Amino acid sequence: MRSVIAQLEASKIREIANADMGRKDVLAFWFGESDEVTPEVIRRAAIESLESGETFYSQNCGLPELREALGQYMTESHPAASVDAGRIVVTSGGVSALMLAVQALVDAGDEVVIVTPVWPNLVAQPTIMGAQVRCVPLRPHAGAWGLDMPALLGAITARTKLLILNAPNNPTGWTLTREEQQQILAHCRSTGTWILADEVYEKLYYEPTAQGCAPSFLDVAAPDDRLVVAHSFSKSFLMTGWRLGWLVLPEALVDAMGKLIEFNTSCASVFTQRAALAALAYRKEITPRVVSHFKHCRDTLVPLLAELPGVQVAPARGGMYAFFRMEGLDDSMEVAKRLVAEAGLGLAPGDAFGPEGRGWLRWCFASKDVGRLAEGVRRLREWLARQHG
Amino acid sequence: MRSVIAQLEASKIREIANADMGRKDVLAFWFGESDEVTPEVIRRAAIESLESGETFYSQNCGLPELREALGQYMTESHPAASVDAGRIVVTSGGVSALMLAVQALVDAGDEVVIVTPVWPNLVAQPTIMGAQVRCVPLRPHAGAWGLDMPALLGAITARTKLLILNAPNNPTGWTLTREEQQQILAHCRSTGTWILADEVYEKLYYEPTAQGCAPSFLDVAAPDDRLVVAHSFSKSFLMTGWRLGWLVLPEALVDAMGKLIEFNTSCASVFTQRAALAALAYRKEITPRVVSHFKHCRDTLVPLLAELPGVQVAPARGGMYAFFRMEGLDDSMEVAKRLVAEAGLGLAPGDAFGPEGRGWLRWCFASKDVGRLAEGVRRLREWLARQHG
Repeated sequence: MRSVIAQLEASKIREIANADMGRKDVLAFWFGESDEVTPEVIRRAAIESLESGETFYSQNCGLPELREALGQYMTESHPAASVDAGRIVVTSGGVSALMLAVQALVDAGDEVVIVTPVWPNLVAQPTIMGAQVRCVPLRPHAGAWGLDMPALLGAITARTKLLILNAPNNPTGWTLTREEQQQILAHCRSTGTWILADEVYEKLYYEPTAQGCAPSFLDVAAPDDRLVVAHSFSKSFLMTGWRLGWLVLPEALVDAMGKLIEFNTSCASVFTQRAALAALAYRKEITPRVVSHFKHCRDTLVPLLAELPGVQVAPARGGMYAFFRMEGLDDSMEVAKRLVAEAGLGLAPGDAFGPEGRGWLRWCFASKDVGRLAEGVRRLREWLARQHG
Repeated sequence: MRSVIAQLEASKIREIANADMGRKDVLAFWFGESDEVTPEVIRRAAIESLESGETFYSQNCGLPELREALGQYMTESHPAASVDAGRIVVTSGGVSALMLAVQALVDAGDEVVIVTPVWPNLVAQPTIMGAQVRCVPLRPHAGAWGLDMPALLGAITARTKLLILNAPNNPTGWTLTREEQQQILAHCRSTGTWILADEVYEKLYYEPTAQGCAPSFLDVAAPDDRLVVAHSFSKSFLMTGWRLGWLVLPEALVDAMGKLIEFNTSCASVFTQRAALAALAYRKEITPRVVSHFKHCRDTLVPLLAELPGVQVAPARGGMYAFFRMEGLDDSMEVAKRLVAEAGLGLAPGDAFGPEGRGWLRWCFASKDVGRLAEGVRRLREWLARQHG
């Protein structure tokens, strides 16, 4: 086996999740998914496709009608960008979208800059391709994380092949402003650096906006800028287990991406793509309800957490996580393991997302039953009281 | 974009398939899939899973019950190997299985040896990882292709990180004998070379055997040999569009493979894995019927082709393709394009599978209606007659 693969860090979240062996009553908030089943109308479309016998290979880049619908959907969200269907390729999940982008852009030995803390897959993917990864940490202020722009721009030089950003950010909820995006884009244009923007949480944005989504690099970039945007059906449509995503690319990259899809996964299942078409057709019923419920979850959880003694937390502007720290409890892995064993509470340790996340915990607040969040906080409060007892 | 990606050859098969624009009456045999819908009992299992709401993430390496069932299935086919479920990981298709294996084993600059002609994905995957690929051609004799063992063993040295073989072979139908496998394994043990055996066609084998499958490296290797075997539900269960496969690995590689799956595709959909469990449960009804029908297809097509003037063809021992050449017609791409336009017959050009395939054509005989094969040959005969007219 390659040493770079042997050395890939195993998921610290899975390590905690595996620690619940023997405890059946753990309230688990460790994974990044809602506990709500995919809406019936979406599942029905896949079932009808299966019943009608759509069980064959399809186009590498996705069904033409799905690419068309995604082009309209992206243009609706980003009117300034006007995303043509010809710039869209359908992928087998958001993670596959990101991996394909990295395969297309990063040679072994290339330098890649990544803003952390972040979903660990974003760091692992260029590492698998043999890249030199350089991380630029966000900085916390009173529980909210922000970008150190001079540090970021200083890290991106003419030697930087690719910048990878995830905003709204998993795990911190940090979201880029339009002005920050413009500054980063201008800098990357000057250094010739590609931007890979993981914007899968763009619809899970809780600030008032016209288009109902977070600022996107698509809003500020030209169609032929060195920009690749990764998306997923997982979050806004409650479709985590379906494994369907897409990329928005400069048109000049689309043919190559079709080849990479052929050599990685061939194509997405037609019945899954039919489900995605239903999701888009019913987007106005599904996503606003999901987002409004997640906001309710956030606004239930964060004040309850903030009331606890020694807890530092700020409401996330986007995403579906509360990222918080507890005074004097700096070993996140140990704390997360003890919370499972001693309080029946399942959270993700902050250092799963980068060393600067150490001392923090991630709580996924996408819970169908808001009462589960309150019960989780009750368990945490009692556990904390026992620590000082 | 990386130059190695820009230079990846686009599929010559797709190039021919795209040439049917405007002709609705083309009989297409160019893709490697049956035209028969997945059996009802398999589709039903996925539908029930969707109805019951199984729409969440699952284990990176696959559902434990599917890994268990695959372990039993592989052991049934290869009693000498006794494949433990712990050596199996479930992947999002056979092509994903192969790509993951290459990611695990091949660093940029490593030397990889591949036996060709072969499905072009096997050459593209190590190329994407930055490897130096060296191809060792099979040799045709009277329409049947065979291994040049001295050339192969001479090409594999201590510098060879990985040997990639596909047998039963797409496109030629060539199949390794047990003795050849033993010789190759012994040589690779001495050079420290990994073997990646693409055995997705093992059940589509038309010689008499006890276990109903082609010779496998699993039959001759030890569990900790440097051997990775790739499989797929696509061919033996008529499940091409589902995108589900698996790998059999040395146990020491399984944890790393779980990480690579996390970073490439996360996991396969649970409803697809439920379909796979149904496929395995009904394997004794499904696969023997499929194989017996494909054999009937082969034995219909090949004699008809052999009767044509100037045609050289031999019955494939395994797989689902007739690979043949026609005297004096050496430009496969041009011939394949003309057959689409002038005869309404869709075949794959042999040089899609390597330069030594030039002058040959691949005909996928997996056709539900055997009459389509006869009609295809009729069109070819008339077209040939016009060439000499």
